[in-house]
Order: sequence, then C-alpha cells, then structure tokens
Amino acid sequence: MGLTLGELAERTGTQVQGNAGLMISGVCTLQEGRADAISFLANPQYRKYLSGTQAGAVILTAGDAKDCSVPALLSNNPYVTYARVAALLYPLNDSVAGIHPSAVVATGSRIGHGASLGPLCVIEEGAQIGADVVIGPGCVVGRDVVIGAGTRLVANVTLCHGVQLGARCLIHPGAVIGSDGFGLANDQGHWLKVPQLGSVRIGDDVEIGANTSIDRGALEDTLIADGVKLDNQIQVAHNVQIGAHTAVAGCVGISGSAKIGAHCMLAGGVGVVGHLEIADGTVVTGMSMVTKSITKSGVYSSGLSAQPNDQWNKIAVRLRHLDDMARRLQALERRLGDKD
Amino acid sequence: MGLTLGELAERTGTQVQGNAGLMISGVCTLQEGRADAISFLANPQYRKYLSGTQAGAVILTAGDAKDCSVPALLSNNPYVTYARVAALLYPLNDSVAGIHPSAVVATGSRIGHGASLGPLCVIEEGAQIGADVVIGPGCVVGRDVVIGAGTRLVANVTLCHGVQLGARCLIHPGAVIGSDGFGLANDQGHWLKVPQLGSVRIGDDVEIGANTSIDRGALEDTLIADGVKLDNQIQVAHNVQIGAHTAVAGCVGISGSAKIGAHCMLAGGVGVVGHLEIADGTVVTGMSMVTKSITKSGVYSSGLSAQPNDQWNKIAVRLRHLDDMARRLQALERRLGDKD
Amino acid sequence: MGLTLGELAERTGTQVQGNAGLMISGVCTLQEGRADAISFLANPQYRKYLSGTQAGAVILTAGDAKDCSVPALLSNNPYVTYARVAALLYPLNDSVAGIHPSAVVATGSRIGHGASLGPLCVIEEGAQIGADVVIGPGCVVGRDVVIGAGTRLVANVTLCHGVQLGARCLIHPGAVIGSDGFGLANDQGHWLKVPQLGSVRIGDDVEIGANTSIDRGALEDTLIADGVKLDNQIQVAHNVQIGAHTAVAGCVGISGSAKIGAHCMLAGGVGVVGHLEIADGTVVTGMSMVTKSITKSGVYSSGLSAQPNDQWNKIAVRLRHLDDMARRLQALERRLGDKD
Repeated sequence: MGLTLGELAERTGTQVQGNAGLMISGVCTLQEGRADAISFLANPQYRKYLSGTQAGAVILTAGDAKDCSVPALLSNNPYVTYARVAALLYPLNDSVAGIHPSAVVATGSRIGHGASLGPLCVIEEGAQIGADVVIGPGCVVGRDVVIGAGTRLVANVTLCHGVQLGARCLIHPGAVIGSDGFGLANDQGHWLKVPQLGSVRIGDDVEIGANTSIDRGALEDTLIADGVKLDNQIQVAHNVQIGAHTAVAGCVGISGSAKIGAHCMLAGGVGVVGHLEIADGTVVTGMSMVTKSITKSGVYSSGLSAQPNDQWNKIAVRLRHLDDMARRLQALERRLGDKD
Repeated sequence: MGLTLGELAERTGTQVQGNAGLMISGVCTLQEGRADAISFLANPQYRKYLSGTQAGAVILTAGDAKDCSVPALLSNNPYVTYARVAALLYPLNDSVAGIHPSAVVATGSRIGHGASLGPLCVIEEGAQIGADVVIGPGCVVGRDVVIGAGTRLVANVTLCHGVQLGARCLIHPGAVIGSDGFGLANDQGHWLKVPQLGSVRIGDDVEIGANTSIDRGALEDTLIADGVKLDNQIQVAHNVQIGAHTAVAGCVGISGSAKIGAHCMLAGGVGVVGHLEIADGTVVTGMSMVTKSITKSGVYSSGLSAQPNDQWNKIAVRLRHLDDMARRLQALERRLGDKD
Repeated sequence: MGLTLGELAERTGTQVQGNAGLMISGVCTLQEGRADAISFLANPQYRKYLSGTQAGAVILTAGDAKDCSVPALLSNNPYVTYARVAALLYPLNDSVAGIHPSAVVATGSRIGHGASLGPLCVIEEGAQIGADVVIGPGCVVGRDVVIGAGTRLVANVTLCHGVQLGARCLIHPGAVIGSDGFGLANDQGHWLKVPQLGSVRIGDDVEIGANTSIDRGALEDTLIADGVKLDNQIQVAHNVQIGAHTAVAGCVGISGSAKIGAHCMLAGGVGVVGHLEIADGTVVTGMSMVTKSITKSGVYSSGLSAQPNDQWNKIAVRLRHLDDMARRLQALERRLGDKD
C-alpha cells in the first residue's frame, strides 16, 4: 500500500517539488532513508543529514528546498505535515466492529454503530458507547459512563462510574479515570473518608497516557478540556481543571482544585499545589513546583541540574547556611558603610 | 430518597438550628446551593458565601450560626459532619452479593457470606475472601491472599500471593499490592535477583489510591497500619512500615525499609530515602526529600517554588558558585577583621 | 523440603565451615534466627548480631568466619551467595503448563512448549510465546508480540502490539510496554498526534516493576538491553535506550531519546531530560535532574535534603535573592580592592 507524492501533497495541502508520481509507502529518518519512504526536516540540527539522505522524498520548508536533491513536499510546518503523512501511510489497524464473545456487556448498556468491544472487556449497566468506539481487551467501563464517537481505550483501561469522555479520545493502557479523590476529614486523629460525589468530564480529542490517573471531583466534576494531551504516569487530583490544548509531560502531579489554563505546557516531573490558577499559555520546566497562582503567562522554573556529587555536596552544605551568609554580607556592608 | 435535618442531626450527633423537619436529599456547595440540599462551612474563606447561599441548610460551627439565615446543623467539626452526612445521603451503590458467572474462582478458595465477585475477576487457590467483600471487575486476587470483611477492590486491582488486607479497606483501580521488592545483588557487574520472600500486611480501614504500588518484603513483611490513607501513583518499597493514620499524598516514593511513624502527613511528590525512621506526627511538605531520620515531629521541607525562568536561571548559575561565594565572603571578613 | 549445608555449598561454589550435613530449609535474618534456617552477613552494621544469632548457619566472608559460632558458608560475596541460596530453597511456585480455559488465545498465535497461560489472559493474533513462558491472569499480549523463553508476566501486564521481550524476563503487575510515545506536532495551537511507528525491544534477564511504563519509539525502537532492572512507577519515553545491566529505582522519569549507558544506577525520583547521553557506569542520586549529557562516569546529584520548615523557608527566601547577594559581594570586593 502507498500513495504518490502528489496524492500526499493534495491530502496535506502542501506543494510538490520534483516527481509527483513517486510512490511512497512509508516514513523514515533522514539518516536512515529508504527509497520508497519519505522523511522530514523540522529541526535545524538535522539539516546536515539532508544532502546525503537516501530517503525517496523529504518534507521541508521552501527555504530548505534548494538544498534538497530528492523530491520534496514543501510545507510551512514540516513536522505537522509529517504527522499527517504518517497517519495516511500507517492507518490504525482497524479493529473489527462487533462484540467479542468473551466481553461482558450489561444488558442496560447502549453500544453505538461500528463499535468494537474486545476480548474480556466489561461494560457495566447504563454505559453509553458511541459509534466507532474501540474498547480494547481487559478494559472496564463502569456504570453510566458515556464515551463519544471514535474514542479508543487501548487495553486494561479503567473508567469508573459516570465518567464522560468526548469524541476521538485515545486512552492508553493502565489509565484510570474517575477514581475517588483524596478527600479526608480529620476526626480526632483518624481520617474519615469524604464521599467523592463528582465525576470526570473529558472533552474531544484528548489523549491520556499509560498508567495516568484522574480522580473524580468531590462535589463538582474534574474537567479536562478539548485537545488536552496527558503523557504517562500523571496524577490529576479531584476538581482539577485543565484548559484546552494544554500538554502535560510524564510524572507530573496536579493537586486538588488547581486550575490550569489553556495552551499550557508542563514538563516532566512538575508538581502543582492545589487551589491555585495557572494562566493560559504558561510553560513550566522540568521538576519545578508551582506553589502559587501564575497570573502572567511565561516560562517558570525551580528545577536544579545535576552536578558532580562532590561539588553538589559542597553547595548543599553552603545552602544550609545561606541565611547566615546573607546576614554576614549585610554586616560587612554596614561596616564598610560606617567606614565611608 | 432523603432524610430530615432532624434525622441527620441524630445520626451525626449534632444540633439542629431551625426547621428539623426539612427534607434533605443531597449535598451542595455554598455557592451553588439547592433548596433540597445541605452545604457546609469549614474553611473561613467561604464565609462570604454564607449569607447569600441557596442551600436548604448548612453545617457549621455554633460560632458561625448567627450569620446563617437558613436551617443549620451545629457541629464542632463541620467538615467531619459533612463527610458523615454525605455518606448517609449517598450510600455506595450496593454491589449484588454473589459470584458473576464470568469470574474465575479457584476451588480451593473461601468466599465469605455476602461477598460480591464481579465480572472477569480471578480468585486463586487458597484465597480467603471475608464477608461482604466486593471484588470489582478485572481484579486478580493471588494465591493465599486474605481479605478482611467489608473491604472493596474497585476494579483491575492486583493482589499478589499471600498479601493480607484488613477489614473495610478501599483499593482503587490499578493498585498493585505485593509485587516483588527491588532486591538485587551485584555479581561482578550483573544484577542477581534476591528472592522476595516476605509479604504485605495491611491493617483495617486503609485506602489505597489508583495505580499505587506496594512491594512485598524481602524476608519480613511490608507493613501498613490501620487507618493509613495512600493517594494515587505512590511507590512503597519492600519492608517499609507506615504507622497508623498516616496520610500520604500522590506521587510519593518511599524507599526500602523506611519506617514512617503514625499520624504523619507526606505531601505530594515527597521522596523518602531507605533505612531511616520518621517520628510520629511528622509533616513533610511537597516535593521534599527526606534523607535522614527525623526524630522530632514537626514540619520538614526542601521543595523550591517556581519563579520566572530568567530569574531562576540567574539563581541557578549563582548556586553553582555558592561554595566560592562563601569562601570569598570569609576572605572579606578576614580582611576587614585585619583592618580593625 | 530442604538442602544440607554441603549441598548448598556445592551448588553455590562456596566453602563449608562446620557441619556440612546440617539440613537447611529456609532463610532468616541474623536477629531473628531459626535453627533450620540460614542467614547472611553482608553489611558490617549487622556484624553485632553475629555472635548471638539463633540461625542454624550463616553466609559470610572468610574474614568474618572466625567470629561465627554456628556452621557457615564462606563466600567472597555473601549477598550474592544469599540470593542463590534463597532461590534454591524457595523455588518459584511452578505454574502448571497449559492454557487456562478462560484465556482468550487468537488462532494465529504460537504458544511454546511448557508455556502457562493463566486465567483471563488475552493473546492476540500473531503473538509468539516462547517455551516455558508464564502469562499470569489478566495479562494482555498484543498482536505480533514476541516473548522469549522462560519470561514471566505476573498479572495484569499489558504488552502492546509488536513488542519484543527477551528470555527470562520478569514483568510485574500493571506494567505497560509499548504504549504510544508522547509525540505531538503543534498545528496553530492545536496538538496533532504524530503516529508512533516504532516498537520496544527488550533484552534477556530484564526485570520491570509494577506500574512502570515503557513507550514505543516514534520511528525507531525504544531499546532496553540485557540485564536491565527497572523498579516500580518508572516512565521510559519513546526512543530511550538503556544500556546493559543498568538499574533504575522507583519513580524515575526518562524523557524521549535519552541514551543511558550500561552499568548505570539511577536512584529514586531522578529525572532525565530528553536527547542526551549518560556515560556507562554513571550514578545519579535521588531526585536529581540530569539536564545535559554526562560524558564522564561518576556520581551526580542535585537533590536537596529536607530540613525543619522554618529554617528551610529562610533559606528559600535568601535563595530568591542569590543573584543580588552575589552582586553585592562583588561590589564589596571591588570597594575593598579600591581601598588597598
């Protein structure tokens, strides 16, 4: 299976340079090119591989096209075009519509047209599965869950009762959506569970990574807006709100009732304290901790870079005495001031 | 379904102010009140919403009662009373006792009276399931596991062989209890697995969050005492001990053989080094790392707050030279001392 | 069941001191010894327990042997010998070869001799399961997965399509291997998914902990070499390479295309930024962040130790003004220089 360069151009809204009839059957890197595959040049660091590439064609900007000796697709955003081309050349292995005989589907559930329910999945009472939804093996879809058209649960995903997922979402294995929030009232030293009565509502085109967990709200709902992308191993606590098209990298923890804006980026290992707001368009770099609201978009950080341990230990010891150092510096300034 | 304010007062040991016959059928926030629902005022920040609330009734302290124009429940601890009221008004959806036909139950296991075994769960040889236990869909209960009365495994929980759970525990989806500890012996550069021969023993009234993992002990058992509450995405290594009524927030990692006291609180993202002890009642704030024993209860920290990236970068550069700065400060002090 | 001390010596290549006919049926700690069990002395901190031990025998070095009043195995590496002895005395509960009737096995898969497929596991089309492989309950083995001889998936493990596992691997519950990498192209503010077309290739003798996730490569494969040991709750992003015999502790996050050398050790909570290299034999201490390539093996750190909160708060405030402090120190140095 394959498409000609011309067909790819037409379907991705790009221009061909060179032989539009070239048949392309796959994608490849610039360094490890194949004659029947197309590569891309997005990161300038890889420009050095362009002249020698063995790829059949390359996706690049018009500005880079003059240095390209093989056929090309000209795009203002080569990486976006690459994503589209790759999706065309490698369509998802289409799951067969229908219900596997080993699936356990409650009689009171509704299964949309074209949906595929894999082996050993469980659909509980009152669940509504949209058209063309794919539920992979081992998934559990709880009571009254609603899943929009075209959404896929890959395998071993758990959706707790009442959770709502939009259309065209992609949920990776081990993800848990709608687990109880960590709501506890302290009753004379013992923790009393506070019933978690809200749910989780997730928009369209959301991707949720492997082993990520999203808790249901305490009273109102946890909200994940359209186009949000969550990586693996993320914890989203109860009543968090994440705005549209925000991307969150792996191992991030977001505490209860934090409200993350739209178009934000949280890098790996970031922690967000509860009950604060982060402005639209904010970027937080790796392993930083957001402890108060960010009202102005920008880049925020508190992560530290690893250094040779003997040097770091000296720094860490000095750091413990930093308040003392600051006082001594002030004292010197005062003494010198007196001398003037 | 509902209860009168008077019935709620009686069942929670609180006092009614106003119409004890008022029928309450749910809970709500102060801001988004409903006439048939009860709210609560625990956090002083929400006091401003009290006068205008549309809630049918409010749970609050006697001190706040004079400002409340709707019926009220007077409580010394409104949040605890709220938790009790919510549990009364929203009883858990009662799972039907019995074994789902798709469950795989080993003949040598014992299933208590009133237990509910959901679809596609697995109960292995020698497991003992207490009375009224609920095993949700997709859970795996290993050989010789013992589960106390009234405990619930929500869905897709894994209990490895020999694990013991107390009564009334609540285990959320994706939790893994009794996986092998990370025990390795270095044999000339290759890692040799050290068999993990202990188990995990968990007390009563313990809650364990989604995708949290608790490893079995190497020789002796990993121990989680009564009333411990663990949030999502937590790692508890082999031979850890966690004392009664300690609460651990999301994304915490506790290394092997660490001994956490009772009534501690570890905030999100905290790391605890192995083979140390933390005193009862200790609080560790977010993303801090505990590297040595804490013998005196108190609040401990090493987390840093995110700042604008350009400011943070300057700080990080200076930090790398902190040892040098300290030496230069000492040199100045010596010189000025010489001048005196 | 048991073995004599002489038999254990023969099978582990060690020397007996004392009664070689002593029957040993288990292992124990030095402190809580049992007459029919063998203990070990590897950590000098435990030497104080040697003289009073109730253990039937002890594994220790020839140097410690003179202080040992019970029979002993003399070893250059007592912990390695202990690991071997424990494996001999506690063989894994042998799973019965064969396919449980509730397992769902695609007709187009190949199941090796002696393999054991547990209850409610799913084996999809084209999968190749090696000899003596154990697939525990609830595991999902995707299309075209290849599993080498003797590998074990404990329970509820997910292997996505096309993943390759070597021989004698051990994969703990909740682990996900081959989930999509976090590949996104920004199309005018919206994230477009970049198809993840690579796979994951894992060598022999690899152990992967509970709820750990390893993403498939974007174009080429994510690679985990022979003998790598990954603890629980780890995130390995797409196109990461981990060299042979490297050990990674819990809660570590490794970003895309990072290349970790062989024989490295990453402690708990470490973060590794993407597209960098770490030299063979490198050690990174707890909760450090590696932000650039490490070309020289050694120990690297950036983690901070928790301190009493009031002290820490003072330090954190001073730290925010560190750049200012450095400037003021320079100013003082200049003034004093001027005075000389």
